[in-house]
Amino acid sequence: MQTSLIYNSEDTICAISTPAGTGGIAVIRLSGRDAFAITDKVWKGKSIAAATTHTAHLGLINDPDTDEVIDQAVATVFRGPHSFTGDDTVELSIHGSRWIQRRVLAILQSQGARLALPGEFTRRAYTAGHLDLAEAEAVADVIAASSQAAHRLAMSQLRGEYSKHIAGLRAELVDLTALLELELDFSEEDLEFASRTRLNELSSSIHIQLSRLADSYKAGANIKDGIPVAIIGPTNAGKSSLLNALLDDERAIVSDIHGTTRDIVEDTIEIGPYLIRFRDTAGLRTTTDTIENIGIERSQAAARSASVVIYMVDPLAATDVANISNSLDGIAQSDVIIAVNKADIAPAEATETAKTLADAFPSATLLTISAKERTALAYLREAILCHIETQVPDSENDVIVTNARHAEALRNAADAASAVSQAIDAGLPADLIAQDLRATIHYLSSITGEITPTEVLSTIFSRFCIGK
Amino acid sequence: MQTSLIYNSEDTICAISTPAGTGGIAVIRLSGRDAFAITDKVWKGKSIAAATTHTAHLGLINDPDTDEVIDQAVATVFRGPHSFTGDDTVELSIHGSRWIQRRVLAILQSQGARLALPGEFTRRAYTAGHLDLAEAEAVADVIAASSQAAHRLAMSQLRGEYSKHIAGLRAELVDLTALLELELDFSEEDLEFASRTRLNELSSSIHIQLSRLADSYKAGANIKDGIPVAIIGPTNAGKSSLLNALLDDERAIVSDIHGTTRDIVEDTIEIGPYLIRFRDTAGLRTTTDTIENIGIERSQAAARSASVVIYMVDPLAATDVANISNSLDGIAQSDVIIAVNKADIAPAEATETAKTLADAFPSATLLTISAKERTALAYLREAILCHIETQVPDSENDVIVTNARHAEALRNAADAASAVSQAIDAGLPADLIAQDLRATIHYLSSITGEITPTEVLSTIFSRFCIGK
Repeated sequence: MQTSLIYNSEDTICAISTPAGTGGIAVIRLSGRDAFAITDKVWKGKSIAAATTHTAHLGLINDPDTDEVIDQAVATVFRGPHSFTGDDTVELSIHGSRWIQRRVLAILQSQGARLALPGEFTRRAYTAGHLDLAEAEAVADVIAASSQAAHRLAMSQLRGEYSKHIAGLRAELVDLTALLELELDFSEEDLEFASRTRLNELSSSIHIQLSRLADSYKAGANIKDGIPVAIIGPTNAGKSSLLNALLDDERAIVSDIHGTTRDIVEDTIEIGPYLIRFRDTAGLRTTTDTIENIGIERSQAAARSASVVIYMVDPLAATDVANISNSLDGIAQSDVIIAVNKADIAPAEATETAKTLADAFPSATLLTISAKERTALAYLREAILCHIETQVPDSENDVIVTNARHAEALRNAADAASAVSQAIDAGLPADLIAQDLRATIHYLSSITGEITPTEVLSTIFSRFCIGK
Repeated sequence: MQTSLIYNSEDTICAISTPAGTGGIAVIRLSGRDAFAITDKVWKGKSIAAATTHTAHLGLINDPDTDEVIDQAVATVFRGPHSFTGDDTVELSIHGSRWIQRRVLAILQSQGARLALPGEFTRRAYTAGHLDLAEAEAVADVIAASSQAAHRLAMSQLRGEYSKHIAGLRAELVDLTALLELELDFSEEDLEFASRTRLNELSSSIHIQLSRLADSYKAGANIKDGIPVAIIGPTNAGKSSLLNALLDDERAIVSDIHGTTRDIVEDTIEIGPYLIRFRDTAGLRTTTDTIENIGIERSQAAARSASVVIYMVDPLAATDVANISNSLDGIAQSDVIIAVNKADIAPAEATETAKTLADAFPSATLLTISAKERTALAYLREAILCHIETQVPDSENDVIVTNARHAEALRNAADAASAVSQAIDAGLPADLIAQDLRATIHYLSSITGEITPTEVLSTIFSRFCIGK
């Protein structure tokens, strides 16, 4: 039997890689030095150890202890290093009963494999150099993505576009550092290989780019986890009816992403390519003397942290412009949609109220709707989409950060780049400038994993599902 | 592009074959005349149409309408007729997010594939002659099997052992019919090629074998769906505590098979290789004047249809042997386990009661237990297993029928074989005997699918899961 190079661990690991449950088929992945030998112990069919890489073979899975046939299966062979993990890998496509899945896994363990930890296959791919760390992290994001926009970002990261961008910035910094270090080698001759003006320009440019990347994290995290849209307004304006109407209209999609995140006041819906996280807040009381109460504070906090705010108005209640202004304190009008409800039962009042508010809030979007009759909901969705699209960077052309760890590293790198500029401005010697440059490079390298400590790696991969 | 032979439908079908949900990977199966052409339309990588059969290829799945990359994937190519369905087949191993699964399926549909009906891949395998009907039906049973015994029966059927047995019986009948038909050809010469004595022996033997097979269905259905064990006894004897204790001890296994079948009074547990379906019945009242009430009737019905009856006794209540006898009316004592409960709080009374009952019911199994303290539960489980194993045919050596359709066909075939014997006994002419022989062959053939009408096929395959 040929054994492949071992990249990280001596263990051969196995796991069910397909979703939990019963289905037509399930796939068990086995990877490591003994993957072929272990498979052959439980395999009745052509020798897996002798098989060509990237070939599929029909055979029987047999319990060697009882000599009982457990299943007919297809074994696909990936010979290291030409496999995802870099190690010899077998994917067993078995019948998808829970009983068979459990049993085959137990037999593989009895023959010397151990259960894989969450993300362990991907971690091995990273250790083997098949993926850098940012790409490996993208694997988990691709699997978790529940909207087109989130999927697009994760795929772009998985395909290395993000890493390439970081690598490009890093390469520029490395070039500069090399020049500076050349100066250090000749320090007694007081030469200046690296033009300070050029150096300053470059570090400023890199600082700007890094800051922009770090800033994109807010949008990136929103795309990944759901873009927060707050529904606020006085009690009885119809906020909950609106949320229910929006949810009900999209029930098929909602049930598809059921379980992603949901609590008492939040619900997620896909609108266009985006996952939207609606926050239905407690009603605002309309009497001025209770304007400072906690409910309003909470609504205002939700509104301030939201990307878009929908302010619901009841045209049959007195409209207090000052009250609305107070509620929207600190929020850009261009992020606000004012929805005058009850256009079904009070069309005249709704139109009248809308006119008044259009004058008072000229930069907000104004709509008259009926949450109950579900009229104009398509316009509302369209308005939400428009507001989001003005805020979200263009994912086709811009690199967007979706990972908190990366955002922190970029922020640190931006600060270090800024320190480079300051050091140059202050006329500091080359070795001090080089130190800040190396710090910048260090933070960028931690993103793609050139210098990531083991504990950080363990944390990163423990967030994966098992079998990937 | 090479296209393979088309065995049944012109359509190229696709489906998610792995369990529903999110996982590391999911597999989408695409099969039919255009499987390769459709894949190549959405595939960035080596041409699938040009690929060798049974090879795996890394590539990108691309939406040809938007030119957007949806996923990195491995495509495994099975060239017809060397595939499960007999048609050209591609298995796309994609990342297991719901979003990607949904999207890839939609793209394949947009390029000309249609969603597969439940069981359609297996139906094509049957139509292509890769499986006979009994083997195809076993695929669904293999996937649904939730215990070792059920799995073993389904695997044996899938591997054709059952079909071989039926085919063996059928071959004997065909030989006899051939001899009889030879007589018919020479009918004017009044020859007797087929010895009537030999014919009678054979048809009797076949009648016995078919009846035995048909009779095995009760055991087979029990193994497949869960062996019914009724817990009966007076109120307060601890029946529900016992059920809870048994369930709790096995919670890990129970949760594994959660959702198979469960209603208010039933629960399933794996004991040894068997799935056991416990029926906790309403308590029997101990006063003689209400002995005819509905509760008892229902308990008795549950007990009579059960494979094993556990009669729970409260040693602190008066033990009325006549009452117990009445409750067990029509049930063989050898199928009864009498469990004297409360051995923890009343050990002396429990032992005394057990002695009395051992004298009264010498063929029943007697145990003293404590449902509350969970003592002697291992003995109880062992006793249940022993009782089951005396009832269940030896699945290693005997063929067991698990399918209602097969049981009915076997019963009809047995009746027809019996009619053959009667016709011979009555000295009827060869053509009439041949008619009954052909009827016997007809019923046997319907099991393996040589002569099964389309509607029956549709019903059979509609019970499958999609993607298989």
